[in-house]
Amino acid sequence: MHALPMRAFDPRLYLVTDTALCAPRSVPEVVAAAVAGGVTAVQVRDKTAGRRELLALTRAVQVVLRNRPGVRLIVNDAVDVALLAGADGVHVGQDDLPADEVRALLGPDRLIGVSVGSAAELTAVLALPAGTVDLVGLSPVWATPTKPDAGPGLGLDGVRALAATARAGGLQAVAIGGISEGNAASVAATGVDGICVVSGICAAADPAAAARVFRAAVPGPVPA
Amino acid sequence: MHALPMRAFDPRLYLVTDTALCAPRSVPEVVAAAVAGGVTAVQVRDKTAGRRELLALTRAVQVVLRNRPGVRLIVNDAVDVALLAGADGVHVGQDDLPADEVRALLGPDRLIGVSVGSAAELTAVLALPAGTVDLVGLSPVWATPTKPDAGPGLGLDGVRALAATARAGGLQAVAIGGISEGNAASVAATGVDGICVVSGICAAADPAAAARVFRAAVPGPVPA
Repeated sequence: MHALPMRAFDPRLYLVTDTALCAPRSVPEVVAAAVAGGVTAVQVRDKTAGRRELLALTRAVQVVLRNRPGVRLIVNDAVDVALLAGADGVHVGQDDLPADEVRALLGPDRLIGVSVGSAAELTAVLALPAGTVDLVGLSPVWATPTKPDAGPGLGLDGVRALAATARAGGLQAVAIGGISEGNAASVAATGVDGICVVSGICAAADPAAAARVFRAAVPGPVPA
Repeated sequence: MHALPMRAFDPRLYLVTDTALCAPRSVPEVVAAAVAGGVTAVQVRDKTAGRRELLALTRAVQVVLRNRPGVRLIVNDAVDVALLAGADGVHVGQDDLPADEVRALLGPDRLIGVSVGSAAELTAVLALPAGTVDLVGLSPVWATPTKPDAGPGLGLDGVRALAATARAGGLQAVAIGGISEGNAASVAATGVDGICVVSGICAAADPAAAARVFRAAVPGPVPA
């Protein structure tokens, strides 16, 4: 059903970058530390950068991940950038290109994630032809200042219900929005395949240490 | 030298759309009137729209141009949208994807335009492999409120000099920025292949009538 075996994408601790929150450190610098701390997948997101800057940023993160083949690199929104960089996939929100159009551009071998904020949006994703979408990002768990346009929070019960539906439909599900070191374990316990973290790692004084704390909250062996 | 014969693109009166300035009319509605008035090429530009909305807008404009095969449809910035819509080309600014990267995505058969605001930027375009770029948009002729991030105006002398250099290098050249009904003829007289108009048509009470006035300022027969 999926172009890529689901196991090919390990979203247990999925870092979504925020250039402003990483500053004054560079995004690649923070990504390198975070991956050393246990991040399992990286999404480059920068809604304020032009596509030229986003392409350069994506390639710089790719260099950091060169010796981490298990850590997939996903580009937020920008299909053209993902194609040029040869990224592992694209994540789209409800205002970005529709998933079936993205699939037409990316071909069958790359990952596509879609943000889902309600049962209706999940139903729409599940209605797409098999193999169109690989993963849904259930968003937001709680309202968050890094994404003010996102809807009201789903809460743990909402995440649990949507994750079960998504997984029953053959999709991976991750949760994003307001996940902190203090609540990460409760989110992981909802049955999602992973948790997404933005400010909890990008704004951390020690991103590697923060990643270690988050990673300890999700199932699977924590790297030494 | 060019993937498309230069004649295939007629940029004499090149409309660049601005969704806010067209309101409360829709962009396709304004484009239809403008083309009836003599617009020879259309660029869909909307820096505030998400890619989903931009794709829908591009396709809606395409429907309007269906019976006007001589009027090329160019998409600003969004290579992914241009590919999905099957548009005739892409126009990129200095913050958008580099022209050689755009050419790699678009293949040899589509038009690529690049915004150029100085002799140095033009030199960089001319240094690209032959066939990479088809057209440069000399910008801005005069400072303009529709593009506050553009640099200081080139003036008519600046446009004349850059247009000559561009054309000597095998590129088409158009001018954009601050072109009004009152100054259009003076811009056309600099030797550019065409003039670009945004607010002069998009904000006009009668876009068809405005297009007729602008079109009368550029060489070539004016449609009846």
